[in-house]
Amino acid sequence: MSGSSDAARLIAGAIEDIVFPDTAAADTAAARQARLTKPPGSLGRLEELTTRIAAITGQPRPRLEQRVIVVAAADHGVSARGVSAYPAAVTGQMVANFLAGGAAINVLADHAGARVRVVDAGVASDTGNDPRLEAVRLGRGTDDITEGPAMSRDLAERSLAAGIGIVQDEHATAGLDLIGCGEMGIGNSTSAAAIIAAATGRPPAAVTGRGTGIDDATHTLKIEAIETALCVNHPDPADGIGLLATVGGFEVGVLAGVYLGAAAHRVPALVDGVISGAAALIATAIEPAVREYLIASHRSPEPGHTATLEALGLEPLLDLHLRLGEGTGAALGMTICVAACRLLDEMATFEEAGVTDSDSVVEPEG
Amino acid sequence: MSGSSDAARLIAGAIEDIVFPDTAAADTAAARQARLTKPPGSLGRLEELTTRIAAITGQPRPRLEQRVIVVAAADHGVSARGVSAYPAAVTGQMVANFLAGGAAINVLADHAGARVRVVDAGVASDTGNDPRLEAVRLGRGTDDITEGPAMSRDLAERSLAAGIGIVQDEHATAGLDLIGCGEMGIGNSTSAAAIIAAATGRPPAAVTGRGTGIDDATHTLKIEAIETALCVNHPDPADGIGLLATVGGFEVGVLAGVYLGAAAHRVPALVDGVISGAAALIATAIEPAVREYLIASHRSPEPGHTATLEALGLEPLLDLHLRLGEGTGAALGMTICVAACRLLDEMATFEEAGVTDSDSVVEPEG
Repeated sequence: MSGSSDAARLIAGAIEDIVFPDTAAADTAAARQARLTKPPGSLGRLEELTTRIAAITGQPRPRLEQRVIVVAAADHGVSARGVSAYPAAVTGQMVANFLAGGAAINVLADHAGARVRVVDAGVASDTGNDPRLEAVRLGRGTDDITEGPAMSRDLAERSLAAGIGIVQDEHATAGLDLIGCGEMGIGNSTSAAAIIAAATGRPPAAVTGRGTGIDDATHTLKIEAIETALCVNHPDPADGIGLLATVGGFEVGVLAGVYLGAAAHRVPALVDGVISGAAALIATAIEPAVREYLIASHRSPEPGHTATLEALGLEPLLDLHLRLGEGTGAALGMTICVAACRLLDEMATFEEAGVTDSDSVVEPEG
Repeated sequence: MSGSSDAARLIAGAIEDIVFPDTAAADTAAARQARLTKPPGSLGRLEELTTRIAAITGQPRPRLEQRVIVVAAADHGVSARGVSAYPAAVTGQMVANFLAGGAAINVLADHAGARVRVVDAGVASDTGNDPRLEAVRLGRGTDDITEGPAMSRDLAERSLAAGIGIVQDEHATAGLDLIGCGEMGIGNSTSAAAIIAAATGRPPAAVTGRGTGIDDATHTLKIEAIETALCVNHPDPADGIGLLATVGGFEVGVLAGVYLGAAAHRVPALVDGVISGAAALIATAIEPAVREYLIASHRSPEPGHTATLEALGLEPLLDLHLRLGEGTGAALGMTICVAACRLLDEMATFEEAGVTDSDSVVEPEG
């Protein structure tokens, strides 16, 4: 990616490629669900999930074999305001932990049979030259959003383009059937709450949570920082790129780009917690049809998350009180998507199994 | 198992082996959770789950490698009252489907890395001599509970002993770290609702659902059948074996035995839907400490299920509107248990990963 015009072209191209999901594939999937050896509808939300994934992929019996979790990391200038329980140095330390395989997302991605793609979107500390690390590096953290925009519009476009590029690359090389988004970035729940407040019109106090586990005084300070950021930057909720540039983060931009790229390639994309939720709000502000390609993996206890899922019109699969991020909820949600699609694909029909269907029963026996 | 006294001895032995879980192992697990590279508590219910499983197994870092789903099938005399949308012949047909690998539970057990053990506890039709089928065969279905007890006390004890025996066998041969219960039996949601009404003291109308998907008239008839069954049999909720004998089922007895056996062997045992929930109520009526070994996999939309989980004091892991039974929710819940225990065992600690913990931060940087 050499510059801004390339990034803008990549974004425009992705938007152009996004079509509305395939209702014919969904209808074929629903018809098969009705013939499988179970009472109709008895697999509940797993059945709805398969018809949605069929519509997204255009495949009546989707097989979600190639799975990827993108973990994007970056720092945030606003962390200097003392909004987090951890120092910014932890962002880079956790990148090393992701590469060494010791983080929660490493365990859960392995559990979900997913590859992990770790991205340095803009970490303040030196993350080294590990070849497994995708070095996007748009800066050493964003600028402090309480004093001005997080980044230039050019950098916002380049972060989105980087996310689109990752999806293109995964799709073109190993193949890609299901993607989940995760992140790491001290201070990024402050950025996410600012995005959510701006995008949903809710007051900062209503969408700002405890992040990594801050006390009351820090929580108050965090809300004030978000109020200041919105006041200083007055982001336009209809301008997704502007929203990202004013109060976003480099990792948020990369993940919003992943959602745009996933929609362009008809790949179902899992939303994790409050930061990937904010990225989804940016992606849908840029192109509303992206929403059709999103699957909400879980409900986070962060108050901004429920506001985000409502704005996206998504009902989460899991509610396990996860508030770690990294894509941990997305990885668990992945296992539910895989299970649902395997049921659709592998179960026997009433005819195949020689089981009497309720339709064929004229009246209850006896 | 030659007769009733053997069965009674096996049950008494299992009860004697049940101890209260190991709080020291739970404390060690909780201490490790606090040192893993994540904010404390950020893995939410997965953390609680690991400390419970540590207490159950007595292992501070439990590994749930050997996993089994027991699917017990039987018929119910009450199905002749027209309480189901399907004819009784479907029970035997579905047993064949389980053995052929075409049912939902086959797919989900494979997804969860679990063996499936299919049990003919008392199916009316001929289920053949497939060596993979555990032929307990306590009768060709229970007697009609609207006219008298489902089975003799002797048969109730033999069904419990069969379940205990399955756990003993799995534990002694391949090993057993986690077990889930499933079932198949046309009419068994009627039996389950009768057990739940008797055990929880709630009126039949409040705990009787649509089972496989019955219409209003059949639902009314089903509630009346349960009211009649309770009136005719007046089961004593404090007498678990009597509850099983009066309004239970052969598969319900086998599963209640599995729960007793699991507790005796310190194996965490997953409750699936309304029928395995009724089996859990019977097991805990026989020995209240069994409750400590149970994990509620999911919340079923059947009204009796929520009443059951409240009575057991369990909060389910999943709420995906599953109402199929067979152990499908238990298999999905298994994957959550496995993920939780892998996180506890495999994640790096702050020290190992060289990540700064919040404890070590004197004041927020900046």
